[in-house]
Amino acid sequence: MTPDHPTDQNAVRNLDSPRQLADWAQTLVAHHKRQLASPAPSPRPAGIDDSSSASLHRTWDDLSAGFVSLQHKNLLVDGADPAVLATAFMAALQGGYLLSAIARHTGPLEIAVEMALRQVARSLTDEPPRPHDRSHR
Amino acid sequence: MTPDHPTDQNAVRNLDSPRQLADWAQTLVAHHKRQLASPAPSPRPAGIDDSSSASLHRTWDDLSAGFVSLQHKNLLVDGADPAVLATAFMAALQGGYLLSAIARHTGPLEIAVEMALRQVARSLTDEPPRPHDRSHR
Repeated sequence: MTPDHPTDQNAVRNLDSPRQLADWAQTLVAHHKRQLASPAPSPRPAGIDDSSSASLHRTWDDLSAGFVSLQHKNLLVDGADPAVLATAFMAALQGGYLLSAIARHTGPLEIAVEMALRQVARSLTDEPPRPHDRSHR
Repeated sequence: MTPDHPTDQNAVRNLDSPRQLADWAQTLVAHHKRQLASPAPSPRPAGIDDSSSASLHRTWDDLSAGFVSLQHKNLLVDGADPAVLATAFMAALQGGYLLSAIARHTGPLEIAVEMALRQVARSLTDEPPRPHDRSHR
């Protein structure tokens, strides 16, 4: 349910572009695929304890910071809420993990990640980032 | 993780309109809200066993049948895959359940359901359903 995240969380917290988010998600999918393919099968999803709950909260916090970073770069439309975007993304990831662990392939996680990235895309401005724009609204 | 579903699964399997899907999801949210508000708090999400895995598969199968039903009523765009739509919807529901159970409020589930319904909306035709159209492509 809460695979260890092999990714650079700082990259998520300081997102420069939506592309980085997609790359981060792709890294998670690839990591999960290796886990499912390992000779020692990962156990079925366990319940949530304090440790996994804290891990989930950290990842949510990283994602939320990442969306705030996009907002500061004027890449999010007005009204887009970084906390809501992070929650939707986390829900897709966790549901995708669960269904993939049961199915023992990453198809469901990939479908869920695509849904999550499309949800984010709806909140992106069309304008390209302005270079050297350091203004934090 | 897999709350009992208080809803009429036949209504899901024989979807006449996307509105029915939204109503079904809303019933799940309301049910989960009552569970979280009950004096006897529901336990933390447990792991996945054979029983909950079978329950998840049944719900996925109901949703998939529902999207096939929409497809037969010409309400889905060409290329929309009922199985993929069902997987994305299930991932959102399950991730939403998990985050809501940890947060002890249904906010995350509501956010996840909204994302899932928007994902479905992307696959809908614009044309209104033709009355008495019983053709099954």
